[in-house]
Amino acid sequence: MNSTASATGPQTTTRTLADPDTPFAVVDVHKTLRNIERLQARADRLGVTLRPHVKTAKSLDVAALLHDGTPPCPVTVSTLAEAEAFADGGYTDITYAVGIDPHKLPRVMALLRRGVRLRVLLDSPEQAESVARAAQRAGLLIPAQIEIDCDGHRGGIKPDDPALTEIGRILHDAGSLDGVLTHAGESYFAYTAEEQRLAARHERDAAVAAAERLRAAGLPVTTVSVGSTPTAHAVEDLTGVTELRAGNYVFFDLVMAGLAVCAIDDLALSVVVTVIGHRPEYGWIITDGGWMAMSRDRGTSVQAQDHGYGLVTDLDGNLLPDLVMTAASQEHGTLTARDDATLPDLPVGTRLRILPNHACATAAQHHGYHVIDSSRTADTAPVIQAVWPRITGW
Amino acid sequence: MNSTASATGPQTTTRTLADPDTPFAVVDVHKTLRNIERLQARADRLGVTLRPHVKTAKSLDVAALLHDGTPPCPVTVSTLAEAEAFADGGYTDITYAVGIDPHKLPRVMALLRRGVRLRVLLDSPEQAESVARAAQRAGLLIPAQIEIDCDGHRGGIKPDDPALTEIGRILHDAGSLDGVLTHAGESYFAYTAEEQRLAARHERDAAVAAAERLRAAGLPVTTVSVGSTPTAHAVEDLTGVTELRAGNYVFFDLVMAGLAVCAIDDLALSVVVTVIGHRPEYGWIITDGGWMAMSRDRGTSVQAQDHGYGLVTDLDGNLLPDLVMTAASQEHGTLTARDDATLPDLPVGTRLRILPNHACATAAQHHGYHVIDSSRTADTAPVIQAVWPRITGW
Repeated sequence: MNSTASATGPQTTTRTLADPDTPFAVVDVHKTLRNIERLQARADRLGVTLRPHVKTAKSLDVAALLHDGTPPCPVTVSTLAEAEAFADGGYTDITYAVGIDPHKLPRVMALLRRGVRLRVLLDSPEQAESVARAAQRAGLLIPAQIEIDCDGHRGGIKPDDPALTEIGRILHDAGSLDGVLTHAGESYFAYTAEEQRLAARHERDAAVAAAERLRAAGLPVTTVSVGSTPTAHAVEDLTGVTELRAGNYVFFDLVMAGLAVCAIDDLALSVVVTVIGHRPEYGWIITDGGWMAMSRDRGTSVQAQDHGYGLVTDLDGNLLPDLVMTAASQEHGTLTARDDATLPDLPVGTRLRILPNHACATAAQHHGYHVIDSSRTADTAPVIQAVWPRITGW
Repeated sequence: MNSTASATGPQTTTRTLADPDTPFAVVDVHKTLRNIERLQARADRLGVTLRPHVKTAKSLDVAALLHDGTPPCPVTVSTLAEAEAFADGGYTDITYAVGIDPHKLPRVMALLRRGVRLRVLLDSPEQAESVARAAQRAGLLIPAQIEIDCDGHRGGIKPDDPALTEIGRILHDAGSLDGVLTHAGESYFAYTAEEQRLAARHERDAAVAAAERLRAAGLPVTTVSVGSTPTAHAVEDLTGVTELRAGNYVFFDLVMAGLAVCAIDDLALSVVVTVIGHRPEYGWIITDGGWMAMSRDRGTSVQAQDHGYGLVTDLDGNLLPDLVMTAASQEHGTLTARDDATLPDLPVGTRLRILPNHACATAAQHHGYHVIDSSRTADTAPVIQAVWPRITGW
């Protein structure tokens, strides 16, 4: 937390979660560190480099927790705005893991000229040719990875697609071929541990098969990159893989808890809201946290246990059993009791915390994080240790 | 558009929608003005003041279109951040239409001291007492409206609730009683013109009945405020009502088009995205506009015609028939052809515009708007007239 002081300036008075106007986002640094250490230990045991995806937190301060005492670690980003902010923060090894739009190559090249090793991603010969032409014109090497589809989730080509070696050849001739990358996006719908292990095996097998095909065609492959939060926590063997990516795990969320990838107690991101009304005739408690604060994400709606827009805790983080945020307007949330449970007595002005379905989406609704440390006990509401800004835009 | 120059500075070269890196939000000022004029003409005909809700655009520049050549109009806001920004912009008549959290009263009073007539909203005796106490301690009048529930949508009390006159009495004794306010939120699910007219009648009847009950108890009521975008466009008689509120109508969206409140051609907000890949085996075109650019809002999913995450136009705004954005990751969108339609040939690098389900939610994903004017023809892609910032946070 070496950037705490710079992010907030000296605090003259102690502020707690009872102080800022609601709604606002909270990060528990104790749980974040525990989540980070858990996956780092797995990566170390599996013998691969961990390349965290910083799209969830979009925060240099959260990223600093990833490499305490060591130089900036390799990272994955979802936007060039993140790449530029992390380059400004001293990170020099960045993978931009969204298929490259040729129009964005000038910003990629500006980062390369600054000495950042920025890898782009692509899955078509036409993109590879765009990269090769831009690199040649600029007299630069633009490192590129070929996106492999391991589960029909979104982009990429299958490992046995004839285009693989064609793309590899174009990149190799331009000095751009770095390797292959795949993401088991469908693992978010792998509801059992066995399904998650299977998704992880498919993810690894697809990446390794693609790398082997390229090598067999005389095209050298350096990086073989796999990962998603569920598969990163399930995978047992990463032979042939060089790096593991995951993003959501720093905060986790109710979707990940629904997959049993984490416990609800591991959720490090929440949103503080205030009770502003009651509708006893409907069994509703109304808060000032709507979808603007939580996002419209309802990831748990397809899981065995639907948690609406989120579960509810008190300010200290203790779950209020059977209370669920079941509806959202722009600036209103509705809390209801599950099944026949009794609605707790929460007067107007009561502050609560909502645990989100999807940390990436909820975090994106906020400019920054109020940071607490649940390992420190206090007689008050949790003390705000710092306020950390988020990177926004594209 | 008098703030165009100040918002962007002098433009040295003409920029079009082909220029900025995608994704980015676009506002068509021609359609926005047309939408504004349509509802203003209705309000004039109905003999009520129009108090636009600025929570959709959250932009002083868009709001300036509401009162071209006249002093700033009365507005409705959903956050104190909006109230403060509009006060800074010279607006002096503001209704904060979310039930008041007593913790936020210091910011309310700071605005009142600046000469802004800011009304708060509440629906319980405890909130009314908080307001009365704060007003007395500060030696200020805090104008307040009582929220009335006309359709069981979220907050408010029924017009016949015994608490109505109790709240009215507390506010009256504190010099705070301004009036009543209701919002027919359920009108978003009124699928026929007749259902919308009925929702509008219920909305008016509830507000007028509440005002009459207060007056019968000797409690003077000044403001009787109603409104939602569907009911504002359906209502035929506003006898007893003093003001009409609506927000979404400046931009409209696919949900409103699905209710036939507007035509798809009226949609003034869209998001420019770029094709970054193809999965012909699945019938997918992949773009760089995911839920981060569109929001997770899927409002049309409960309508007769589900439009996924949005409909697709070319850069000039011409609808590409049968093409729908059917899936979204954080920074990826998937376009598919409806039914058995043929997928159009859209090479990597092609720019498209996505029309959103819910303008309020999609606009909230962006820092500002690239402004075009579709009434001006050009040989190029639409020319960017200005870039307008948005108000964010709480």
